[in-house]
Amino acid sequence: MIIAVDAMGGDHAPPVIVQGAVQAVAESKDKLQIILTGKKQKIQKELEKLGWNKNLIKIHSASQVVDSTVRPSQVVKQLPDSSLVQGIKLLKEGKVDAFVSAGSTGAILSSALLLLGRIKGVRRPAISVYLPASGLVMCDVGANTEVKAHHLLQFAIMASEYMNHMHCIEEPKVGLLNIGEEANKGREEYVKAHSLLSKVLPNFKGNVEARDLFKGKIDVVVCDGFVGNNLLKFAEGWIHHVRGEVTSQLTSEEKNMDKSALNDIFTDIIREYEYEESGGCFLLGVKGICMICHGASPARAIKNAILSTAQSVKENLVESIRTGISLSVAQIEKN
Amino acid sequence: MIIAVDAMGGDHAPPVIVQGAVQAVAESKDKLQIILTGKKQKIQKELEKLGWNKNLIKIHSASQVVDSTVRPSQVVKQLPDSSLVQGIKLLKEGKVDAFVSAGSTGAILSSALLLLGRIKGVRRPAISVYLPASGLVMCDVGANTEVKAHHLLQFAIMASEYMNHMHCIEEPKVGLLNIGEEANKGREEYVKAHSLLSKVLPNFKGNVEARDLFKGKIDVVVCDGFVGNNLLKFAEGWIHHVRGEVTSQLTSEEKNMDKSALNDIFTDIIREYEYEESGGCFLLGVKGICMICHGASPARAIKNAILSTAQSVKENLVESIRTGISLSVAQIEKN
Repeated sequence: MIIAVDAMGGDHAPPVIVQGAVQAVAESKDKLQIILTGKKQKIQKELEKLGWNKNLIKIHSASQVVDSTVRPSQVVKQLPDSSLVQGIKLLKEGKVDAFVSAGSTGAILSSALLLLGRIKGVRRPAISVYLPASGLVMCDVGANTEVKAHHLLQFAIMASEYMNHMHCIEEPKVGLLNIGEEANKGREEYVKAHSLLSKVLPNFKGNVEARDLFKGKIDVVVCDGFVGNNLLKFAEGWIHHVRGEVTSQLTSEEKNMDKSALNDIFTDIIREYEYEESGGCFLLGVKGICMICHGASPARAIKNAILSTAQSVKENLVESIRTGISLSVAQIEKN
Repeated sequence: MIIAVDAMGGDHAPPVIVQGAVQAVAESKDKLQIILTGKKQKIQKELEKLGWNKNLIKIHSASQVVDSTVRPSQVVKQLPDSSLVQGIKLLKEGKVDAFVSAGSTGAILSSALLLLGRIKGVRRPAISVYLPASGLVMCDVGANTEVKAHHLLQFAIMASEYMNHMHCIEEPKVGLLNIGEEANKGREEYVKAHSLLSKVLPNFKGNVEARDLFKGKIDVVVCDGFVGNNLLKFAEGWIHHVRGEVTSQLTSEEKNMDKSALNDIFTDIIREYEYEESGGCFLLGVKGICMICHGASPARAIKNAILSTAQSVKENLVESIRTGISLSVAQIEKN
């Protein structure tokens, strides 16, 4: 199995990306090979520091780097030799099995849509994220700011395939994120979605309020990307804030206590909320496996994202989504 | 000053509501009087347990209780003698200065709109909540699932008056909740709102991402009620989840440490995230001060909500909103 990794994407690229790739290759049990895309000399320098295994990690040279001055929709056209576009092209050409990047979400989304295209029947690709504290996947968390009911249904189907294959849950229970449990609550498209999902999905458990996401009642929660993205970022801001408070309490000289024990407990609790454990977000619905990592990802997050991507290749996630969606298209037409 | 309190609204009514009222009267420095609306005998029984000061707390008898079988929009018509409707009527008739309830948000919203009406110029009343961990007010958190740009502008104006009068911030900095900082990000109405707020509000600081709500950059964040409500409930679910984890760590027998010190630290940190401190949510934009408390509010939250309501009466919040909105209406017409 070969995975292309965008060595130039992310706040700490290329060093942490290269580190993550080296760690992933070392930990993988799947004979994993990685192709790092980006500026050859810079990548080489990092690899040599880490003891480069040239059989397992190769470099695909790309002279350009995506930056925020180019609009996401223009990246393929204006930056054809960027590490991001080159990585997705390797995937399109079948030279690799998946693509991982910690670059701009918008740029990855636009470029993947343009170069790979959508899986047949998929109306809108969506971004999913696994939340370890809740033990569920949320979809969409940023690809679609405005949605129709039938998009929410497709998010549910794609994310259910993800939970089935990646977390071994055979019949994932699906909830629709909403501001109340009653079927008539929320935005108009959510009311329609409640009705559509009730008819089409045997495992639809109705509306779920955000406060109940931690109760283990469901495995998949669907929402539009505007709400999902806001929730995800709110969670992220909160973790940082709480961590700051904990640090300030632990370094306070007034308190006399076993600080290392306290630190251990806090670390245990906070870890559950961190994206590093699951690594990143899958872009579901395009013809190829694309993983989007947080721009601030440390090496451990990159490593976990690559290993998670490798698992999705083994599980043939794209093919499962294709099947799931094709079954649903027939059902939507009936309803 | 007299405040009507719905003694029958909330998960633990009437006991905790009556306790909160008694505590508020004892702590208030404003010669506060309270009229409890609801079932007379039940309320009397609770008051007598607590040493009833009949000069400061009176009962307005109401024979009905709002329950979830009646649609919010039908409460005024079908339950005219409910504690909720009677309380709002006292406010409308000028017999009290404000109304506080921990009953159904939808029922309070509908009944207040119907009985009190909107302040002149206000297109959509909105619910605001103060988040102590962020030191800011968020508006809307549940009254409007779908909004236009000009609604978001009005939320900003109303919530700014709130911050000015309730938290002594003379020129509150306003942010628009969005999924990116750039002006062209997010839903269509948010892009329009960014442009409108930039023109009309001197203190508009642009888009703010949910992860940055804890950074103290802004005093007011505006959003639609669907996103706001989801964020608020997500935060609530998270507090409960973290508290559960802390408790399980503290009761674990394996660990040998100073558990009481640890408990103190957690309590300090978690308190900042709890609604009890600020008490509840103001319904802004109706002709009268209405405070909506969380259904699960303990007595301390009810007490804080009543005291906060009393402050808003002293600050003449309704009149300030009327002035702020009337100025803005002229500006919107220009733009």
